[in-house]
Amino acid sequence: MQAKPLSLHSDRLFPADPAVRDVARRLYGEVSGLPIISPHGHTDPAWFATNAPFEDATSLLLTPDHYLFRMLYSQGVPMEALGVPSRKGASPADPRAAWRLFASHMHLFRGTPSAIWLEHVFAEVFGFDVALDAGTADLYFDRIGELLATPAFRPRALFERFNIEVLATTESPTDPLNYHKAIRESGWGGRVVTAYRPDPVVDPEHEDFWPSLERFAQLSGQDVSFWAGYLEAHRIRRQAFIAAGATSTDHGHPTAQTADLAPADAEALYHRILDGVRSKEDAELFRAQMLTEMARMSLDDGLVMQIHPGSFRNHNARLFWTQGRDKGADIPQPTDYVRALKPLLDRFGNEPGLTLILFTLDETAYSRELAPLAGHYPALRLGPAWWFHDSPEGMRRFREQTTETAGFYNTVGFNDDTRAFLSIPARHDVARRVDCGFLGRLVAEHRMTEDEAADVAQDLAYNLAKKAYKLDAPQPLPSRARLASARDA
Amino acid sequence: MQAKPLSLHSDRLFPADPAVRDVARRLYGEVSGLPIISPHGHTDPAWFATNAPFEDATSLLLTPDHYLFRMLYSQGVPMEALGVPSRKGASPADPRAAWRLFASHMHLFRGTPSAIWLEHVFAEVFGFDVALDAGTADLYFDRIGELLATPAFRPRALFERFNIEVLATTESPTDPLNYHKAIRESGWGGRVVTAYRPDPVVDPEHEDFWPSLERFAQLSGQDVSFWAGYLEAHRIRRQAFIAAGATSTDHGHPTAQTADLAPADAEALYHRILDGVRSKEDAELFRAQMLTEMARMSLDDGLVMQIHPGSFRNHNARLFWTQGRDKGADIPQPTDYVRALKPLLDRFGNEPGLTLILFTLDETAYSRELAPLAGHYPALRLGPAWWFHDSPEGMRRFREQTTETAGFYNTVGFNDDTRAFLSIPARHDVARRVDCGFLGRLVAEHRMTEDEAADVAQDLAYNLAKKAYKLDAPQPLPSRARLASARDA
Amino acid sequence: MQAKPLSLHSDRLFPADPAVRDVARRLYGEVSGLPIISPHGHTDPAWFATNAPFEDATSLLLTPDHYLFRMLYSQGVPMEALGVPSRKGASPADPRAAWRLFASHMHLFRGTPSAIWLEHVFAEVFGFDVALDAGTADLYFDRIGELLATPAFRPRALFERFNIEVLATTESPTDPLNYHKAIRESGWGGRVVTAYRPDPVVDPEHEDFWPSLERFAQLSGQDVSFWAGYLEAHRIRRQAFIAAGATSTDHGHPTAQTADLAPADAEALYHRILDGVRSKEDAELFRAQMLTEMARMSLDDGLVMQIHPGSFRNHNARLFWTQGRDKGADIPQPTDYVRALKPLLDRFGNEPGLTLILFTLDETAYSRELAPLAGHYPALRLGPAWWFHDSPEGMRRFREQTTETAGFYNTVGFNDDTRAFLSIPARHDVARRVDCGFLGRLVAEHRMTEDEAADVAQDLAYNLAKKAYKLDAPQPLPSRARLASARDA
Repeated sequence: MQAKPLSLHSDRLFPADPAVRDVARRLYGEVSGLPIISPHGHTDPAWFATNAPFEDATSLLLTPDHYLFRMLYSQGVPMEALGVPSRKGASPADPRAAWRLFASHMHLFRGTPSAIWLEHVFAEVFGFDVALDAGTADLYFDRIGELLATPAFRPRALFERFNIEVLATTESPTDPLNYHKAIRESGWGGRVVTAYRPDPVVDPEHEDFWPSLERFAQLSGQDVSFWAGYLEAHRIRRQAFIAAGATSTDHGHPTAQTADLAPADAEALYHRILDGVRSKEDAELFRAQMLTEMARMSLDDGLVMQIHPGSFRNHNARLFWTQGRDKGADIPQPTDYVRALKPLLDRFGNEPGLTLILFTLDETAYSRELAPLAGHYPALRLGPAWWFHDSPEGMRRFREQTTETAGFYNTVGFNDDTRAFLSIPARHDVARRVDCGFLGRLVAEHRMTEDEAADVAQDLAYNLAKKAYKLDAPQPLPSRARLASARDA
Repeated sequence: MQAKPLSLHSDRLFPADPAVRDVARRLYGEVSGLPIISPHGHTDPAWFATNAPFEDATSLLLTPDHYLFRMLYSQGVPMEALGVPSRKGASPADPRAAWRLFASHMHLFRGTPSAIWLEHVFAEVFGFDVALDAGTADLYFDRIGELLATPAFRPRALFERFNIEVLATTESPTDPLNYHKAIRESGWGGRVVTAYRPDPVVDPEHEDFWPSLERFAQLSGQDVSFWAGYLEAHRIRRQAFIAAGATSTDHGHPTAQTADLAPADAEALYHRILDGVRSKEDAELFRAQMLTEMARMSLDDGLVMQIHPGSFRNHNARLFWTQGRDKGADIPQPTDYVRALKPLLDRFGNEPGLTLILFTLDETAYSRELAPLAGHYPALRLGPAWWFHDSPEGMRRFREQTTETAGFYNTVGFNDDTRAFLSIPARHDVARRVDCGFLGRLVAEHRMTEDEAADVAQDLAYNLAKKAYKLDAPQPLPSRARLASARDA
Repeated sequence: MQAKPLSLHSDRLFPADPAVRDVARRLYGEVSGLPIISPHGHTDPAWFATNAPFEDATSLLLTPDHYLFRMLYSQGVPMEALGVPSRKGASPADPRAAWRLFASHMHLFRGTPSAIWLEHVFAEVFGFDVALDAGTADLYFDRIGELLATPAFRPRALFERFNIEVLATTESPTDPLNYHKAIRESGWGGRVVTAYRPDPVVDPEHEDFWPSLERFAQLSGQDVSFWAGYLEAHRIRRQAFIAAGATSTDHGHPTAQTADLAPADAEALYHRILDGVRSKEDAELFRAQMLTEMARMSLDDGLVMQIHPGSFRNHNARLFWTQGRDKGADIPQPTDYVRALKPLLDRFGNEPGLTLILFTLDETAYSRELAPLAGHYPALRLGPAWWFHDSPEGMRRFREQTTETAGFYNTVGFNDDTRAFLSIPARHDVARRVDCGFLGRLVAEHRMTEDEAADVAQDLAYNLAKKAYKLDAPQPLPSRARLASARDA
């Protein structure tokens, strides 16, 4: 079988209509080269701290990417055969064999964003000009392995090549942030910041709640067996995160429920949690109350809040027990915002000093709840299309369903939200292309002038993320420019 | 900064594809000049009764329009600074300063229907050829002020210039309808009718329920302390509304819940309400029962019923206490129709003599519930895309999601539902353009002939509204033609 | 009034954009002639067993098609006047008068799939070149009547002319399958298979539950007064269905709820049902448990499972009492899958040997629940856009909202799900055109190569249905090829 050519068309993802495409192309031309602002994601700070080379195609591209292995799993391919680690540890699968298995199933990704991201990585990052399939699997595996061994493919070199201006990782309050410290002390000019994700110490149903709470007490030096000490521990760890560059917190709750209890009731609730006599309702109420507590702290320390609600985590019980978390078995569910957020909004919704960024996996909330809420409350902004909707059709629906009520300026640009480091440029490129396509249509339908669209395109690609996440504030860290000049000297 | 040109492109809002656009343009050409039927809205009948001049740009265009000031509020602009009145009374803000503040935030409206409506008003009604922004704010304020002082910009003159064939306002049963009486007695030929909106005397949770009930008793001359008297009071006030031209009632309930209680149970429920011992469930049940009572009366007196459910009113508690109602803080919520409407439909759904027009803020109901219901029950019709969905994308989704199941002929044309009088032509124009664009696509995809599409376009722009709202019936009022000839004589 | 021409444009249903249309046309050219795989539908096996001629236009095309008469009913046309049978028996309406009434309301179907299907049937099956309306009603009625009397319009001849490779009907376990037996024994080569639809003996709220259970016991020879006997009766009837060609079961439950009770609890539940002391919750729980029992049996006997949940059947109470079932008054409602399916999925979701095909009437589940579930669980596949969504816009939304998460290969091609035999080619043609239009857009936007799209188009039109429904397995029946050669000899 002859290898099929691989090339990225310069007009990819633009609407086919020539008038729309012409505008989209011009708009994109003005934003395609802008630096990447990545204010929310899940890359590993160890990569940038140690700058150790990545190992091989399978461990870099396949086994950490649940978008990929879940699709093969859905068609009957066992995860072990793909090299995905289980609770027993690393998979015994041979990396090359796993890669071949993956390559022979590439047709499953037709029409998916994974195909778009992979092709971008293959063509742009590794320079392939033939497509991956069963016949080219070895060629790919070998070439990628060779390139990863070269200095140009070390994490820091790729970070610079990708033109990333700032990259946020996400850590638990129980993380000592050593890698972030190492990055800053290394003298390297790349801006990698953390974000405060307190779920393990905020969600009593989290499997690691108790050990996390213990570690939380140690790291903060607080007696978390009292409500006041527990809150103080948060304040202290937030400060540590801010010192490591954090400008935001993130909250991955099953629902968007908030609460605004009287202090004595909140304290009593916390003690029920600690005493282990809590009910399912108590767990939900505690998470709800903690969102309001986090908002209160954000008003003090300035951290931008993000809520990522609505995922039924680890839906596949058997898989969870054998393979563990994050295996592509998190399933969205209907998510209420109107009633859920009211307690927090009644308390802090009118504060222009608070920024609360809302995400959803339930698209029905875009036009019904989220755009009307963000189009009214000073504290609210809409995060971009998330997870299952971080895709050309998903992003298009996000704009079509939120813009008319919330406008563009209650949104916050793009998040890649990924642990797939090499796909970051691809993901931002998709977002820029889709936004320029949407704007191109508005211009072609005479709903906006091209000048206005050009402004909006730049805001969506760069300015809004920087502003909403307060990444334009003076940095406490050595500036990138200074370090770059130091490096060049 | 040089002023940016303002012009309305003749092809605006048509799809960009040339084949679709060609058809859309031709279809629109046949409907763009049709008179405006405005069967549901919130303009003030006092304008047409007194024909007093409008004051200035701010009080005419900005402070009554919650679409506009909520967007600025969402970005941190205080409502007081925009001239929006509060519970303490009129805002002390200088109208010109408020207008400048508004003008400097026009970029927030990019991609929103507000921008489209405003540009239409600025260009078509006031003749501007430069865009509104910080640099042209004073020019606008001055010019608009001058024009409003001229006879051609008095309410009646604008009504005639706008080619409005009939305009419905909305009044409470406690309204004496004096302005409507004055309009009719003035000899002016404009057809302005009222609509019966009994929420304040039907919703026990309405803040004005008790005083409204008292006023209701006075105006109707009934003893509303008994169920029979209360119902009779409705019958009497409905007759008064019919005499003032009303052809419809309107019901703005939190849900679409209906009930069909035995008469004794309905009576007992009413007495619980009056005795003040009602529960939250009683309030909901009473509203539900009253929808069925209203349907029963409609079968007698012929008034078309409208249900506008699903808004969580005054979501922002703090704002409600400082600023009052209708400040852009009404947020949609999921709305059930299938179970909610069943009691009423079991009673009256098969009556071809009843017309019950359903609206929604929950777009998920379009294809799942509303189109199947309207595509089956003789009594049901679908109202147009409403409120947050009264926009190009919103109207397109309405057609795409309802037409295949309900067809065009179970819909009722367009409602502008606005208190922004000057935007009425703009809103109808948007609806006509979007419908012609949708039809143009069906023709270009060979799903309909252009002849059929031309018929449908006329029906959507004019005939369906007139028929569904029974505005084509012989009027009890002096005919417009006769008055016009009297005026011309 | 002059008759309007009727012709089917060769580019119908393709997107208007020339670049997209060019690709769509080429893709369609490669699939338009493929045989029809119809794995789920409601045609009457008696037609193919007896091969008796169809009677007239009204009884063939109008009275069995609830899409048609519900639309007229929604506009006030009585069902009796259209010839629709009621509980009292056949309608006394004259078939020709009913047909004229129908013809005079054809405008109601503008923009609906019914119009598309009818025009296809009129033009392709009957050869009309003028459109149906009041003026051509008699011409149509006469010509159709004449043609139906000819051999070429007998059921088997049409089956062959329609190029149907396999057609599945749907029967209750209480059906003796005599017609299927007669078809097989007739020596005719058409492949008509049954499907196992046990709702009448699985749903305690089904109006025919008790008589069906009795018949079920008789046909299976089991004592169904015990849980074990009841389950064994299912096993036995499933075998009889398999012998009649069945490869699938189908379950039309109000919800998608499943359960996985301990055997003793399931038994106790069954006895509560039989003792008539069941609650509404018991009925739901029993249906839920039976889905899991059916899955367990499918793992043994290989039948593919289909779940068609979410319809509120017989919503119109008065109509149900006068006219009976299936009169266009079934209304969709919100349908949960994430929690509802968990019990069954926890038990069998990871079995690659099970195929469970999910349908929905609640489009909000496409991207939120169904695509993520099917994109993960090996046992799950997504059925095509169903019922109210079996339409150009509905099918387009299905692809747009499921493909990016589930891909194409977790879907199962097209189902016509119809009792309107003559419309089967039209329906498959619409599906093929819409899929090719969707693929054409992906190619034109450079998201897929045209080679890939051509593969996918063939899979969607033919291969996936055959594979998912196991219709590619060796048949126990005389092969079509052999019979065809016998016939030609």
